[in-house]
This record gives sequence, structure tokens and C-alpha cells, in this order.
Amino acid sequence: MKFCNLCGSDLAQRVPAGDNRPRHQCTECNEIHYQNPKMVVGTLVSDDQGRVLLCRRAIEPRHGYWTLPAGYMENGETTLQGALRETWEEAEANVSTPALYQIFNVPRINQVYFIYRATLDGAFGCGEESLECQLFHQHEIPWDELAFSTVYHCLKRWFQHPNDHQVQERTIDYPARASS
Amino acid sequence: MKFCNLCGSDLAQRVPAGDNRPRHQCTECNEIHYQNPKMVVGTLVSDDQGRVLLCRRAIEPRHGYWTLPAGYMENGETTLQGALRETWEEAEANVSTPALYQIFNVPRINQVYFIYRATLDGAFGCGEESLECQLFHQHEIPWDELAFSTVYHCLKRWFQHPNDHQVQERTIDYPARASS
Ligand SMILES: [Zn+2]
Ligand SMILES: [Zn+2]
Repeated sequence: MKFCNLCGSDLAQRVPAGDNRPRHQCTECNEIHYQNPKMVVGTLVSDDQGRVLLCRRAIEPRHGYWTLPAGYMENGETTLQGALRETWEEAEANVSTPALYQIFNVPRINQVYFIYRATLDGAFGCGEESLECQLFHQHEIPWDELAFSTVYHCLKRWFQHPNDHQVQERTIDYPARASS
Repeated sequence: MKFCNLCGSDLAQRVPAGDNRPRHQCTECNEIHYQNPKMVVGTLVSDDQGRVLLCRRAIEPRHGYWTLPAGYMENGETTLQGALRETWEEAEANVSTPALYQIFNVPRINQVYFIYRATLDGAFGCGEESLECQLFHQHEIPWDELAFSTVYHCLKRWFQHPNDHQVQERTIDYPARASS
């Protein structure tokens, strides 16, 4: 971040009055440009055989690796609306009975994950950001080819504690990869 | 948002390739500048008499109105760390046994609230962003002088359902004021 997105002037790193940490502040209009964590919203979708829906990523980062349907929350939507939107965009899947299941904090990359559990409702397809989408039994999960450690932890919890439907918070430390 | 914060060139509203909604995209370097919801993190702090800690705002918006200690989550911290930081900054209060209590979606203003319940640990003071901080019994709560509807709903739930400690999600529609 080098230029003010309001007036185009140079930014400087300053601690604004009343603040206690350096911010990007415009040297002309004095606007402070804050940077804040982003929310990632998604779903853990299961079918009536206990299989879980995964998508193989057609985009970077982690192209070719398997993930839960999830993505950045957009302005103007709720966390649940965002999770259902991503599920449709990535897997062309409709779901029923969604309920908040897992929250991940990943402070190293300034992300907070919101994963809803939900039941697959009918068929599914394959969205533009996915190479393929597939239902997996526990023993079929491609554990070594998961895109992110959040996906790993979510699936592990799901299969190891199938009756635990509480909302759980967990902090993921570096590195945010599947093997951690 | 009119200028690219990377190169200072003009931004245009465009639907980028592979996307389905207009974004601010740089006309020179092609960088896409996304806008995403922000997280507000805070606490509902109670003492051993069942009183709740509120802060009267020394800043806009809603200067002079009462609020829970809460503010924007910062990069590099977890939701809980942010909530505890805000509690210190606004009320100079340390707390123990924090647990996630209430999530609010406020899509009209692109905010997601994370409120932790916690127990007051020792004394408290008054931070720079507060005019005063005070413990309130239920019958003392200044219901007509609360800053935001999220504060109202959180306090109402707390006093009406004192044994309900589940994580609850709620969407707040317009207007996001105390009276709604
Ligand atoms: Zn400026
Ligand atoms: Zn640019």
C-alpha cells in the first residue's frame, strides 16, 4: 500500500492521534487506511451415507489440492449466506439444515474461518473454481492432498467425533498447510 | 475508492475474468481491490454480583451512548485476543474464563460481531475511548442510551436467559441502533 485510494497522494506509516500502532495515513488528506482480517466462509457438507463433499482447486493457492467449499465473505451478506454462496459457486450444491460448526483463527495470514455443517440436498456439480467435486467416505479422504490445515482439522474432527456438533473455536498456527 | 493504492493510477468498476460481480480494478496495473466485511470483537463482562460492565463512548459514532467493550479486530491477532485487547483499551479491565457467546451479522454495514462472555478479574478503569465505565445490575441498565442494537440484544439475552451459554448467531437488520 503506497498511495491513498481517495486522493492518489503518498501514504506514510504513522501512529495516528489516539491510536497505538502505525497505520497507513495519507500525507495530503490525512485519511487512515486500516487493514483488517478477512473472513473465510464455507461448509462441511455430508450426504446420507456419511460421505463428505470436497472440491479439487482449479485456482491458486494450492491448485490441484482438495478443499471444503469456502471463500472470502462478501460485503452485504451474512456469514451463512456467504457459506451457501461459496458452496454453490464451487460445487453447484444446494444444502439443508446448515449450522455453525467450526471457527478457525489463522492470525499469521489474518483470516477467520466460519465453517457450517450442512446436509447435501440433491445432486451437485462442479463450479468454475474447481477441477472436480466428489463425495468421500472417511477411508477415501485424500489426507495427503488437502489444501489447507483448516480443512484437515475440520475433517479430522468430523470423522473422529461424529456426535459432537458444538460450535468449536481453534487457532491454527504457522504453517497453514494441510500437513501441520 | 478512486485510486490504486499500489501504483496511484485510476480505478475502474469492472467484473474481473472469472468473477461475477463488479470490483475496483486498477486501469494500469490491473490489481483488484476487494472490499470485505470487518469483524468487531468484544466482551460481555460480568462480576460476582451479576452486574455487567458498560462503557460510555468518548468517540463517534454514538458519542455519549453506552456500549460493551468492543472494536475492530486487528491483523495478527485472534478474535479472542482482539476482544481482550479492546476490553483493556476501553475499560482497563482484565477478565478470566472468556468463552464465545454471541455472533451478530450486520450485513447492511458489513460487520460481523464476536462477543465473548467473561468474568471481571479485579478492578477496572476507564480507557481513552470511554467517558466512563460502570457496572450495572439488570434494573440499572440504561436501555434507552445504548449505542448499538447489538449491545441491546446481547444484554437482553444475557439477563433474560442467564443459564443459556450456547454460542448463538443472530442477524441484525437495519437500522443498527439500540432501539431496533
Ligand atoms: Zn488521501
Ligand atoms: Zn495499480
